[in-house]
Amino acid sequence: MKSFNSILKSLVHKRQSWLCVGLDISPEALGSDSLMDLKKHTFKVIDATKNYAVAYKPNFAFFERWGAKGFSWLEETVDYIGDDYIKIADAKRGDIGNTASQYAHSIFDHFGFDCVTINPFMGSDSIYPFLEKKERGVFLLAKTSNPSANVLQNVKQEGLTVFERVVQMANNLNQKDNIGLVVGATVTKDLQIIRDHSPGMPILIPGVGAQGGDLVTSMRIGNQNGIGLINISRSISFSGDMSSESIKKAASNYASQMFKAIT
Amino acid sequence: MKSFNSILKSLVHKRQSWLCVGLDISPEALGSDSLMDLKKHTFKVIDATKNYAVAYKPNFAFFERWGAKGFSWLEETVDYIGDDYIKIADAKRGDIGNTASQYAHSIFDHFGFDCVTINPFMGSDSIYPFLEKKERGVFLLAKTSNPSANVLQNVKQEGLTVFERVVQMANNLNQKDNIGLVVGATVTKDLQIIRDHSPGMPILIPGVGAQGGDLVTSMRIGNQNGIGLINISRSISFSGDMSSESIKKAASNYASQMFKAIT
Repeated sequence: MKSFNSILKSLVHKRQSWLCVGLDISPEALGSDSLMDLKKHTFKVIDATKNYAVAYKPNFAFFERWGAKGFSWLEETVDYIGDDYIKIADAKRGDIGNTASQYAHSIFDHFGFDCVTINPFMGSDSIYPFLEKKERGVFLLAKTSNPSANVLQNVKQEGLTVFERVVQMANNLNQKDNIGLVVGATVTKDLQIIRDHSPGMPILIPGVGAQGGDLVTSMRIGNQNGIGLINISRSISFSGDMSSESIKKAASNYASQMFKAIT
Repeated sequence: MKSFNSILKSLVHKRQSWLCVGLDISPEALGSDSLMDLKKHTFKVIDATKNYAVAYKPNFAFFERWGAKGFSWLEETVDYIGDDYIKIADAKRGDIGNTASQYAHSIFDHFGFDCVTINPFMGSDSIYPFLEKKERGVFLLAKTSNPSANVLQNVKQEGLTVFERVVQMANNLNQKDNIGLVVGATVTKDLQIIRDHSPGMPILIPGVGAQGGDLVTSMRIGNQNGIGLINISRSISFSGDMSSESIKKAASNYASQMFKAIT
């Protein structure tokens, strides 16, 4: 059995795609409150992007909003994506070990995701349960793309910031080659610091598109010595008139910008 | 409309109870893999503790493990608890504003919780969406009860640790009197520091019971200048032979220890 990080690397090299399509399907963006319409749009986005994406990242919040019915939609979405893509659970979970084990059951065993985004605030014992199977992975939040990220993530003691300590934590936890990091495309200076301190480790980079992050710079830094996956959500799913053609064109356009940036 | 913090305070004073019953109902602890058995046990715990508890705290992980069916169980559990108790969503969510809004919809509008535990790692813009309605509240993780909590939470710059900065953040965000803190009973020294810096703010204190935290000291410090709610999960739900009598006895015993500690 190969490790999560090597499975991801092989797939990116085979497909020559660095595009992760984020599935954040909200009624506000779609202009419909019908769960059936949201579900149809999700499948339409997957169909329209399947020739360009290497990974899909359903964002749990957008499904949880609908309770049990939303979780049914999430179950169907994971099945619909299928086994030819890396399925990232964007859940940002983090809790004491006993609870984290239950979340790991949910994400890997129940839903069948390949990996999950995890919040490092509670430390390593909250992360271990997600790393038990080497073919399942974790993307640990190191530096996020939002405006107030610095308040805690940049606190510095003895020359090391909180986000650099997260990178150290990830390096220590990477015994099975199944941990990566999340770093926002809006903070390319920090992305370079993190890339330098995590050789070979995959980095998931959100924040391009609606949040205004720099695609070309993020791709170049992110892929210097390991895989840098770029996530695009709203700018693909709700592109133009939201038709299949429009979504397809946006995905194709982003995928080729990524390819060009590093070749 | 009263604020969340004042609703909580009134209810604690009226009931003279500081007991929050955590609902972490796992198949491992119950000794049954049947969702029906888990559901029955949940209702049994609520029935057996209703004369002693002031709040209930379903832990989302234990429900999410079962996907859509687990979320149906969570919906039923919230209904079963009813409106006479503070319903705490132990979800530890935290994400960028756009996503946090969806989680707020889920927890307050869909499920009907009164408040939610939130992870502060991403900063204040990830917390705002949960504070919009003054009658709905947030408990922000400040210092957690698990072994590796210190690695990030104790990082100190210019005399202030990360957890003290979380307390500052909470004070700044408390414009509508609807934010509190989570502090583990296993770290009573830090609980005192936090209590001193958050006068009047409610503190939710997990870690007594299975995790070995100190009940009497936590109660005394926690209630010095505001409400200190003590959460007990496994030591009540799976007490003794797990009969109604046994659960009732454990709840009654914990509730009276709490009452005695501060009267």
